[in-house]
Amino acid sequence: VTSPAVAAADWGTSSFRLWLLDAAGTVLAERRSGDGMLTAGAEGFGPILERQLAAAGAAAELPVIVCGMAGARQGWIEAPYVTLPAGLDGILAGAVPVPGQSRTIRILPGLAQRSADAPDVMRGEETQLAGILPLFTSGRHLICMPGTHSKWVEAADGVISGFRTWLTGELFSVLSKQSILRHSLGENAAPALPDNAVFRAACADALTQGGDVGPSLFRIRAATLLNDLKPDEAAATLSGLLIGAEIASARRVFDAAADKVILVASGPLGSLYAAALKLAGCAVLQADADEAVRAGLFEAAKRLGWVGADSTGSQSESTTP
Amino acid sequence: VTSPAVAAADWGTSSFRLWLLDAAGTVLAERRSGDGMLTAGAEGFGPILERQLAAAGAAAELPVIVCGMAGARQGWIEAPYVTLPAGLDGILAGAVPVPGQSRTIRILPGLAQRSADAPDVMRGEETQLAGILPLFTSGRHLICMPGTHSKWVEAADGVISGFRTWLTGELFSVLSKQSILRHSLGENAAPALPDNAVFRAACADALTQGGDVGPSLFRIRAATLLNDLKPDEAAATLSGLLIGAEIASARRVFDAAADKVILVASGPLGSLYAAALKLAGCAVLQADADEAVRAGLFEAAKRLGWVGADSTGSQSESTTP
Repeated sequence: VTSPAVAAADWGTSSFRLWLLDAAGTVLAERRSGDGMLTAGAEGFGPILERQLAAAGAAAELPVIVCGMAGARQGWIEAPYVTLPAGLDGILAGAVPVPGQSRTIRILPGLAQRSADAPDVMRGEETQLAGILPLFTSGRHLICMPGTHSKWVEAADGVISGFRTWLTGELFSVLSKQSILRHSLGENAAPALPDNAVFRAACADALTQGGDVGPSLFRIRAATLLNDLKPDEAAATLSGLLIGAEIASARRVFDAAADKVILVASGPLGSLYAAALKLAGCAVLQADADEAVRAGLFEAAKRLGWVGADSTGSQSESTTP
Repeated sequence: VTSPAVAAADWGTSSFRLWLLDAAGTVLAERRSGDGMLTAGAEGFGPILERQLAAAGAAAELPVIVCGMAGARQGWIEAPYVTLPAGLDGILAGAVPVPGQSRTIRILPGLAQRSADAPDVMRGEETQLAGILPLFTSGRHLICMPGTHSKWVEAADGVISGFRTWLTGELFSVLSKQSILRHSLGENAAPALPDNAVFRAACADALTQGGDVGPSLFRIRAATLLNDLKPDEAAATLSGLLIGAEIASARRVFDAAADKVILVASGPLGSLYAAALKLAGCAVLQADADEAVRAGLFEAAKRLGWVGADSTGSQSESTTP
């Protein structure tokens, strides 16, 4: 039985995930909770982390590598955005130690695209990228990371060169819950499945519109009134339209690289995007998002010298910057 | 001093407006309240209407012509959608009398576009159209009716031949209040003015994207974080992006008719759309939306024989269907 070499935490806006990893990166323990940045303010980031580490059985001196919103300005300790272009080394150089803790803790920074016409930021996704970029060290690649705020990322020779954000997940949420379309979807519409014909038709329709979903959204409401569209069909239509529009839009923005897409996603959302990308005529390579963020955190720990052949153990790292 | 010949009511989802008009269509009295369809359920449509008529000083026998959500299925009396193509006569033929009232009351129907690929409905806007179509009896015209749910309507030789709905106003509302962008706009962002440079730049940018606003929305959040974008600028950007995207999208959908647009709108929103349409290179003719709906209601009353040369007064009309 191996023992934990490092703890890795993905600390998002509304979720917290922690893994204890051995020196080979194998998961020895996992904790998940809703103690995201939004709720961590009350209890404090440090106490939450120590409580979760104790529950996972971590030793007092185990070092912790963290990514996500814990590094935002309104988070624990700000890890300022690293400006593009950036590779793994650039991300690591921006990692910020958390002072005043009984153990070594570093928070990875987010990435910023500082351009006048397309300013953009990410925080958390850069660590997923750090987990998959070692697999794609040469050539130009387009990476799709779907979610509340979907990121499409261009990488060239292992360096992140540009990215853009689509609000797809958030649009689905506010349109289905807050807009006139809520009457069509109801409160218990089932999420679409990738082989759902309504989802696929809506997706195919949006793909032909170059990302412009404007004239299609109200169709859902009209079809409820005129054609008795069912709530599940309304949800599948909205999902297909928004995902199809995102893909068409991203293919327009990243035209030269858009025939082959590396999809970083987990679960049902990953299956929906994989189906939609194939409808769009893209060749899809899929990486699991959970595994990617864990791999990125572990890669960071390795490069920090916390684990691996040249590591002298967690004590080698000081909490002083 | 002339006396009221007809009462005209525009009964929307969340608002109620009533005018007493003389035989020439001149406004003699006006009432506005928040007693829209959503709140009318409690007090009842009939009591609200009688209360407002009494407050306006209407005689007991004055007939009332109504348009809007009062005719929806969940309204007062359903006035089923009239299917396109439809002119004024078609709309009037669908007017439904309200039974069991002490006076003559008719509710105008909405319009439905029953097509498989673009089902759509309107309720209320058809009466604004009825008010302006007599000015455009020949030729093909494109009419823009901005609002919570913007309608773009194609009319040929005085007949409404097609329309599409954009959720622009609702998107602005849910994105500015419910999405991540609320942090950028804050709670008191001032609405954009038509000569605002930020509004115009965002609008021009969206116009070049063919209606695809997907890759641009998160830019607002990023510019707040990276460039200290101010709340008023964020609001102007969101407004410009959404209005520009709607116009680009509508020009794509209605390509052949899109160089000249009849804008039916009131107040600040009308000014914003007029500026945006001119940025898009459109020649703009503007009609006031309030005057248009009143003119449409009056035109309906005339054709029903309630007012005008061949009218024998309101008593000529029975409440029996």
